[in-house]
Amino acid sequence: MWRLHQFPLCPFSRAVRFGLAEKGEVVELVEARPWERPDQLFALNPACQTPALENGALVLADSTAILEYVEETIERPPIIGASAAERAEARRLAAWFKERFYAEVTAPLLSERLIKRIVTREMPDGRVLRSAARAAETHLQYVEYLLDHNRWLAGPTFSIADIHAAAQISVADYLSGVDWAGHAQAKMWYSALKSRPSFRAMLADRMEGVRPPAHYDKLDF
Amino acid sequence: MWRLHQFPLCPFSRAVRFGLAEKGEVVELVEARPWERPDQLFALNPACQTPALENGALVLADSTAILEYVEETIERPPIIGASAAERAEARRLAAWFKERFYAEVTAPLLSERLIKRIVTREMPDGRVLRSAARAAETHLQYVEYLLDHNRWLAGPTFSIADIHAAAQISVADYLSGVDWAGHAQAKMWYSALKSRPSFRAMLADRMEGVRPPAHYDKLDF
Repeated sequence: MWRLHQFPLCPFSRAVRFGLAEKGEVVELVEARPWERPDQLFALNPACQTPALENGALVLADSTAILEYVEETIERPPIIGASAAERAEARRLAAWFKERFYAEVTAPLLSERLIKRIVTREMPDGRVLRSAARAAETHLQYVEYLLDHNRWLAGPTFSIADIHAAAQISVADYLSGVDWAGHAQAKMWYSALKSRPSFRAMLADRMEGVRPPAHYDKLDF
Repeated sequence: MWRLHQFPLCPFSRAVRFGLAEKGEVVELVEARPWERPDQLFALNPACQTPALENGALVLADSTAILEYVEETIERPPIIGASAAERAEARRLAAWFKERFYAEVTAPLLSERLIKRIVTREMPDGRVLRSAARAAETHLQYVEYLLDHNRWLAGPTFSIADIHAAAQISVADYLSGVDWAGHAQAKMWYSALKSRPSFRAMLADRMEGVRPPAHYDKLDF
C-alpha cells in the first residue's frame, strides 16, 4: 500500500496524487507540514520536503523521481508521452510548471496566504501578491499558446505536463491567485482535468484555516 | 550533429555536456548569455535559459528532459542506474543538486561573482557569499554521507546524480565557493570525476573576465 506524506496545498504532492490516481493506484495520505520540520518527514526525505512516498521498505522522494518511477513500474496508461521527442517535451513542460510557475506564482501565494495566515500570523504583502498575479496571467497565456498547437499541453496525449500544470494551477486557484477571465481555452482544458475522477478527489480537500474561492471546485467556473 | 547553446559557467549545460560526453557524443558549443535575453535562445527555449540542444529539426530544453532523452535514445553506457529503485534514487539526488545546491550555492555565487563582475559592475555582497559558503559545507557533508554508503552518490554505478552534483560543484569551485579542507572522501570522489575525459574537457573552459582558483582544474587539489 502506498503511503504519501503530503499536505493539501503542496503542489508537488498533488502532482504525485494525480499521477498515481491516473494509474489506478490507491494511496493512503499522511499529513506532513514541512515548515514544522517533522522528524518523520526528515527521516523519509533528507530535504524535509513533501512529497515522500512509502511502500513497505521502498521510500521515494521528489515528485519527478516519483512519477518516473510510477511510469516505469506501472505501464498503463502512459503519462509521459509516446516517442522520445514527445517525452522530452512533456518533461520540459513539467519542469516549466514545477520550477517557473512554482517560483513565480505558487510559492509566493503559499508564503503570503498560507504560511503568513497559519504560522507567522502576518498580513500578506500586496506587492508580492500583485507580482504573482501578473506572473499567473503570463503563464495562462502560455497555456493557451500551447493549446493552440496541441490537444494537451505537450502533444496529442495527456501527460506529466498537464499533471504538473494542473497541480500548480489548482493550488494557486485555491489561494485566489488565478484570474480566469479572458482565458476560455485554458478554462476548457482545466475543466476537462477537473472532470477526471483522478483529479476531482483532490479538489474536495481543504487546508485548515484557509478557504478557497467559490468557483474553486466547480466544473463550470 | 548536436549543437548546445550554453555558457561556460552554466551548471545545467555542464550536466548536459558531461552526460553527452559519457555517451560518446560529440557536441558543437554555441555561446548564449541568458541574461542578455538573446532572441536566438528565446526561439529555442521560451524559458530563455541554457541549455538548449539542437540536432537538425529536434530542439530540446531543460537539463533533466535532455538527459532523459539521451538515456532513452543512446543506450550505452547507462547513466540513470539499473533497477527502478536505483533510478528513482539517482533522480532524487539529481534534483537535490539541480534545485537545492543550485539555489543555495551556485546561484548566489553566479550572481555575486559573475553577473556583478561582468554585467552590473558591482561589488559582491559578503553576507551572501558567507551564506553560500556555509551551504556548500553542508552539501559536502551530505556528499560524504552518501559516499559512506555507496561507491557513487546514488548507488553502485555512476549516474545523473554524480553528473548533476559534479556540474554544480565545478561551477561553485570555479567561483572559489568550495572549501575542500576536511573532506577527503568528497575530494577522492571529485578527483575520480575530474580524471574522466568526459569531464576534464570542461575544466579547460574559461569564462571571460572571471578566473578560477589555481586548484580548480588540478586532479590533485
